[in-house]
Amino acid sequence: MGVASSSYSLLSLSSHQHHSFLLSTTTFSNQRKTKLDSRPHFSSNPTSKNIPFESHLQILAHSPTTPLSVCGFHWKVGTLNCGRLREMETEVGVGANTLLDLPGVDQDLVDKIAFDALVWSSLHGLVVGDKTAQRSGKVPGVGMMHAPFSLLPMSFPENQFKMACEVAPIFNELVDRVSLDGKFLQDSLSRTKKVDVFTARLLDIHSKMLEINKKEDIRLGLHRSDYMLDEQTKLLLQIELNTISSSFPGLSSLVTELHRNLLIHYGEQLGLDSKKIPGNTAVKQFAEVLAKAWTEYNNPRAVVLVVAQPEERNIGGQAVAVVYFRAGYTPIDYPSESEWRARLLMEQSSAVKCPSISYHLAGTKKIQQELAKPNVLERFLDNKEDIAKVRKCFAGLWSLDDSEIVSHAIEKPELYVMKPQREGGGNNIYGEDVRETLLRLRKEGSEENAAYILMQMIFPSVSPTFLMRDGICHKDNAISELGIYGAYLRNKDKVIMNEQCGYLMRTKVSSSKEGGVAAGFAVLDSIYLT
Amino acid sequence: MGVASSSYSLLSLSSHQHHSFLLSTTTFSNQRKTKLDSRPHFSSNPTSKNIPFESHLQILAHSPTTPLSVCGFHWKVGTLNCGRLREMETEVGVGANTLLDLPGVDQDLVDKIAFDALVWSSLHGLVVGDKTAQRSGKVPGVGMMHAPFSLLPMSFPENQFKMACEVAPIFNELVDRVSLDGKFLQDSLSRTKKVDVFTARLLDIHSKMLEINKKEDIRLGLHRSDYMLDEQTKLLLQIELNTISSSFPGLSSLVTELHRNLLIHYGEQLGLDSKKIPGNTAVKQFAEVLAKAWTEYNNPRAVVLVVAQPEERNIGGQAVAVVYFRAGYTPIDYPSESEWRARLLMEQSSAVKCPSISYHLAGTKKIQQELAKPNVLERFLDNKEDIAKVRKCFAGLWSLDDSEIVSHAIEKPELYVMKPQREGGGNNIYGEDVRETLLRLRKEGSEENAAYILMQMIFPSVSPTFLMRDGICHKDNAISELGIYGAYLRNKDKVIMNEQCGYLMRTKVSSSKEGGVAAGFAVLDSIYLT
Repeated sequence: MGVASSSYSLLSLSSHQHHSFLLSTTTFSNQRKTKLDSRPHFSSNPTSKNIPFESHLQILAHSPTTPLSVCGFHWKVGTLNCGRLREMETEVGVGANTLLDLPGVDQDLVDKIAFDALVWSSLHGLVVGDKTAQRSGKVPGVGMMHAPFSLLPMSFPENQFKMACEVAPIFNELVDRVSLDGKFLQDSLSRTKKVDVFTARLLDIHSKMLEINKKEDIRLGLHRSDYMLDEQTKLLLQIELNTISSSFPGLSSLVTELHRNLLIHYGEQLGLDSKKIPGNTAVKQFAEVLAKAWTEYNNPRAVVLVVAQPEERNIGGQAVAVVYFRAGYTPIDYPSESEWRARLLMEQSSAVKCPSISYHLAGTKKIQQELAKPNVLERFLDNKEDIAKVRKCFAGLWSLDDSEIVSHAIEKPELYVMKPQREGGGNNIYGEDVRETLLRLRKEGSEENAAYILMQMIFPSVSPTFLMRDGICHKDNAISELGIYGAYLRNKDKVIMNEQCGYLMRTKVSSSKEGGVAAGFAVLDSIYLT
Repeated sequence: MGVASSSYSLLSLSSHQHHSFLLSTTTFSNQRKTKLDSRPHFSSNPTSKNIPFESHLQILAHSPTTPLSVCGFHWKVGTLNCGRLREMETEVGVGANTLLDLPGVDQDLVDKIAFDALVWSSLHGLVVGDKTAQRSGKVPGVGMMHAPFSLLPMSFPENQFKMACEVAPIFNELVDRVSLDGKFLQDSLSRTKKVDVFTARLLDIHSKMLEINKKEDIRLGLHRSDYMLDEQTKLLLQIELNTISSSFPGLSSLVTELHRNLLIHYGEQLGLDSKKIPGNTAVKQFAEVLAKAWTEYNNPRAVVLVVAQPEERNIGGQAVAVVYFRAGYTPIDYPSESEWRARLLMEQSSAVKCPSISYHLAGTKKIQQELAKPNVLERFLDNKEDIAKVRKCFAGLWSLDDSEIVSHAIEKPELYVMKPQREGGGNNIYGEDVRETLLRLRKEGSEENAAYILMQMIFPSVSPTFLMRDGICHKDNAISELGIYGAYLRNKDKVIMNEQCGYLMRTKVSSSKEGGVAAGFAVLDSIYLT
């Protein structure tokens, strides 16, 4: 019997996979019942609106031996009133006729899948903090909601996905090689240094390490290379290579599991096969390589230190084997000299840094652009095939010193993105602003040129997608960005791990600026191989 | 690099178990940073209050080869101000000196365990709806918070736990046998029927089934027998046997996992061994037996129907193999004749009911009391040892017709609990109210006598416990109630499953009324065998 408690609980009983049903329900306490509405408010099934229990219940069995059959069964709640129900329905996000263009998918089915997906999220940790909740982010375990996700995986060409996975270890190796060439990093970033204070501070630390001839025997990289599929050229082009705080290995693994689970249950109805979703063990492999780095450090009493933004963990006087930076990639993370001193001290220590200052610098946009220059990859990679594969991923990347390209970009700004060295996304310059900024810089003839790179505009294909956000299912045209995680660990000459590990698919409404780092309203997604 | 998004995400990387560290962190978006406080507000470590980053950071390594060591490391947030920090600290739930009575456990350790426990909860679905969140309970996937739980498992004598597990299949069998004796159910409840409208309605349905000689070939029971350990007699005494809507198989399995996980990481420091926590696969076994019942029904196109309180799931014209009642145990669930008609129709059908009306009635308090009478168990069970084991669990249970017991209860009301047939907990009568109610009933000489049973008051032992609720860790003296789940499935003469499956431990502050069904502030707990 129900135990009176002040909150309700989510209960899901999933049968073994060889059975064909999924059973899940939400249970509520007595106290809350009077306030609750039973309708998931993304539902807009026109056949089940405001119909009282009685007329709605169509039990087809009236004799002891006939089977029970129900159509639209309600277990009505004591004080549920229709006014409340109507009020909820004004929030409906999906119109019933917007689905007509997707064969085999009707509104009822979408509602069911969306409901199950939301319950699954709650039960499997696919959650984020709800910024409307007062204590969310201050206290763990309170104020949570489901992470934004796409209801179904995004189609993606299998050969392109394979290629992206294949180059991941090559990029890992490339970062390592670049990180060892202190002069290349300093030279390439020498002009950026003059106009970007943040990069300058990182370079200062790097210089100090060069001065004392600091060697990192154990080198750990947790990277993510981001790509977009260019609609015109059908090429998968690199947006950026992240060498610090590569985000979402946990949530992306979960979304893959969610989509696989949904296709196991609904795949037949949708005409989709769950086996077409590639496995995603990013979080497991990230944990594994962190553990391996800790093992290499070879001090069983040492800990892994996680540097996070608004987080504090007291670690009483313990040795640190590995420093994992989940913060430190943006100037905002260094509000005073103290943080810079801390970063320097950590860099000076024998702890394994993920990333080291050299790895961090190797991931800057300026280095990305330098590597794209002719004959630069050849300085760091030996294998010609590897070089060709990596080069194929490079979008057009230019310094603002290239006057020919600058002239072309002024003429056709819609074909370019201007990217400042500054991190964090959302700082890119598009369209008419590209023209204006380039004209201003040309006129002023300033050093500020060095603060930007120019990148070829990528035009990804647009697909209709169901986006789940805030408990509501929206349908919109969306574009996707693929991130491939890479893990790298070496100790002196011994490469302990160099792997592609899982992926991150992010999907956003196509009204967002394209071709840059994903910004704004993006949901987590997975891949359906085609 | 961090992707700008409007919410933050929880990320946990757990290493393989053979490594000795747990790594978890909370990541936040740029947008929220200015509002966030890094301190989990249950922390009250006096050494780390309002100390600025600089003086707090004690990095012990200043040369390139010495290891990094930190004491209380902060990565300070841009706009964190001390005023806010102080404000948070007024919410501290645990005073530093309240822990002195627990050897080996200091405040820092409790803070660390509490933090990890809260993060673990978020990541593993140990969540419930937050009733302060507006849409919580209306839309799945929003407005969640951690379920209330105890920070560490509760000590429990191994032999008593084993005994409770051992009798579970016997109780399963007993319910089945009792359910087949329609006359016993009708006779035992004949007087209750006159004073309790709800029981009367259930009996009406039961009578109709007797009239049409309805046979249930496939009988499915998902039960939970609740016990308290009596401090004086050291006996484990049954509080009640639930045969409908046995709650918390999911959350109780999760809390067990949480506690095991915490002891794997902190067991050494706490002097506790994770292997002393018995496994808890209640949810898995409940799902399994539901799936088996569905298989027995033998219609691959039929579904499992879950009847839940404020829930609605549209199931378009599908046959029902199994009806699982997560509602229907309280009069509130039957606000009109429609629900009673639905219950009757479901009972008439060939669907497997969990529970059938007979199973439901077999779990009433009146039947519990009838079964405790001399020579009644013998009517239903054959094995003398089984009978002795079951009888040993029975607390003193009496009808109000027993004038000797009534006189004693008027004299010493503190030794009795008066339980109305009405379900839901919180309706029990204790102490001086027992005396007054009994005197009134004696004076009025009414039929109302039949609405109650008298039960021996159980005095469970009280232990200091850490209770986690609403993100805050409270220390309080608490008592516990053990629930043992049982699953039973038979098809005609073939018993397909008859198992004890997992357990539910609920702990509540000892100021609550004792001896009755757990009511009010209870947290989920697990067991540490002693």
